[in-house]
Amino acid sequence: MRPELLSRVLSLLPQSAARPELRDYHEMLRDYPQRGGKGLRSELLLHSARAHGLRDTDPGWERALWLAAALELFQNWVLIHDDIEDDSEDRRGRPALHRLHGVALAINAGDGLHAYMWAAVHRAGVTGGMDAFLQMIHRTAEGQHLDLCWVERQEWALREADYLEMVRLKTAYYTVVVPLQLGALAAGATPHTGFETAGLALGTAFQIRDDVLNLLGDPLKYGKEIGGDLLEGKRTLIALHWLSTAPEAQRQVFLAQMARPRPDKDPATVAQLQAWLLESGSVAHAQAVAAQEAASGLQLLQDALSGARDRVAAAELLSTVRDLATREA
Amino acid sequence: MRPELLSRVLSLLPQSAARPELRDYHEMLRDYPQRGGKGLRSELLLHSARAHGLRDTDPGWERALWLAAALELFQNWVLIHDDIEDDSEDRRGRPALHRLHGVALAINAGDGLHAYMWAAVHRAGVTGGMDAFLQMIHRTAEGQHLDLCWVERQEWALREADYLEMVRLKTAYYTVVVPLQLGALAAGATPHTGFETAGLALGTAFQIRDDVLNLLGDPLKYGKEIGGDLLEGKRTLIALHWLSTAPEAQRQVFLAQMARPRPDKDPATVAQLQAWLLESGSVAHAQAVAAQEAASGLQLLQDALSGARDRVAAAELLSTVRDLATREA
Repeated sequence: MRPELLSRVLSLLPQSAARPELRDYHEMLRDYPQRGGKGLRSELLLHSARAHGLRDTDPGWERALWLAAALELFQNWVLIHDDIEDDSEDRRGRPALHRLHGVALAINAGDGLHAYMWAAVHRAGVTGGMDAFLQMIHRTAEGQHLDLCWVERQEWALREADYLEMVRLKTAYYTVVVPLQLGALAAGATPHTGFETAGLALGTAFQIRDDVLNLLGDPLKYGKEIGGDLLEGKRTLIALHWLSTAPEAQRQVFLAQMARPRPDKDPATVAQLQAWLLESGSVAHAQAVAAQEAASGLQLLQDALSGARDRVAAAELLSTVRDLATREA
Repeated sequence: MRPELLSRVLSLLPQSAARPELRDYHEMLRDYPQRGGKGLRSELLLHSARAHGLRDTDPGWERALWLAAALELFQNWVLIHDDIEDDSEDRRGRPALHRLHGVALAINAGDGLHAYMWAAVHRAGVTGGMDAFLQMIHRTAEGQHLDLCWVERQEWALREADYLEMVRLKTAYYTVVVPLQLGALAAGATPHTGFETAGLALGTAFQIRDDVLNLLGDPLKYGKEIGGDLLEGKRTLIALHWLSTAPEAQRQVFLAQMARPRPDKDPATVAQLQAWLLESGSVAHAQAVAAQEAASGLQLLQDALSGARDRVAAAELLSTVRDLATREA
């Protein structure tokens, strides 16, 4: 995220304590935000606020910035807990927080950061802001539950529609729908009802692109381990499509490997699976679904923004959203 | 908690979903609240509101009830995460949530319940309520960090003052200080500054009594496993006092056993440690500290309530707090 937004986030977090243990706790709160996320969602919020006529010279701009800081805090506490839930190794090029401090302290630090997110929402004082954050967390937790319970239950008998429902809940609300809505609210406007359908399609495109990058991305640009989804046994559109088309022998190798907990997975077999997935038509299929979702979402968003107060800013918003939904890194 | 408060809590939580997995998620959200906690903290809040002149026939009573529901939701999401952090076996006579559904789904359900807590705070719409909840979570997470990092680092070189600081942060704010303050806020009053010092002493007494009950309580009344603190390697005033007075050979047995992760602890040795602690003067010492904290807290609270608008309700509040700080179960 941009330096001035990071400063705002850090200004909310405690900076000093008499006890060294509490200084360590404060350090844990600051760790993920300082690792330099891209700040996509807060940018989207601010673009949306501008499109709704809010200018950075208006007194209301300060409120928009607090909501943007809250959105960044949301993503960071969720990532701390996600990394535990998936037992991820790395986050933004460094070991995940629970791998540095243990699961117990990392759960607690995530909870602490969650509370500071609400402090930022409170500070913003935007009418409707709290309701938007509540909806965002509810939907994200529901999507996360779907994702995790399929892993827990070894559930691979899933259709494309199941995957899409999970991704809309888990990713699309907090990545696109709610940032668009919050921008409107910060500008004192009622969010267009079209933001929901537009954002769900665009957020889905974003997540499918993420799945693709996880398999074949540039490790330096991507910031997570390539192939991590396979190691974590995540349901992706690529894997579900491949399972519906792959030779039975390969399917059995895949399912047997996915049934193992992460530490017991065999790296050579996982590399073989990755090769099968890459060689299949399933990556191309996923890319096509992502492109379709992106195109339909952009059209819906363009319609929703047709009456935008600031047309130049609305065009910039559309361009930012297009980059996000067709991301290459 | 009382049936009408439980109904209010449950009314906030989602009741239906098309997908069976999401119905399971909703069931997880309702699980801990339905296990029948005592509702001590919400009772305290309502007593405090009455002492500040709020009556259950006033329109503001509804606001107090929403804050009380939020306090119960706070305790329940914290317990879900606590049980994971401590790897507890049981909660209120049933397996802990993560032992029923796995760590990943339980972390996520705790996060979901955390958000519903904020929904209740929002619904209450009490001026100052959100700030009080923020302070409560910040202090509780700091105390939890101290407790957990001592376990993580095998830190037993701790003084009584360290324990007391941890307990004030971890227990006293959410058990006494903030419920007293929230009651005042719900009645439209400014919380007396004396509630903080009074509540810190009373909450400390409550936690020390909890430590004692954990060692020698009645399993049916207590609801957690007796001796669980030893199995979880928790720092208690009893253990710290005992370590400062016990024969060196016994100390070494204790520290060696505490250095083992819970599954590797030897039940016979833990039973021996429990016997040593019970036979020592350390339980009596802890009881004496608890009695002293309770007496000083009650005096401070009595002073803070001397100008109470409803003197009968203030007397009831003091009586409830006395029961809580000198609890036998």
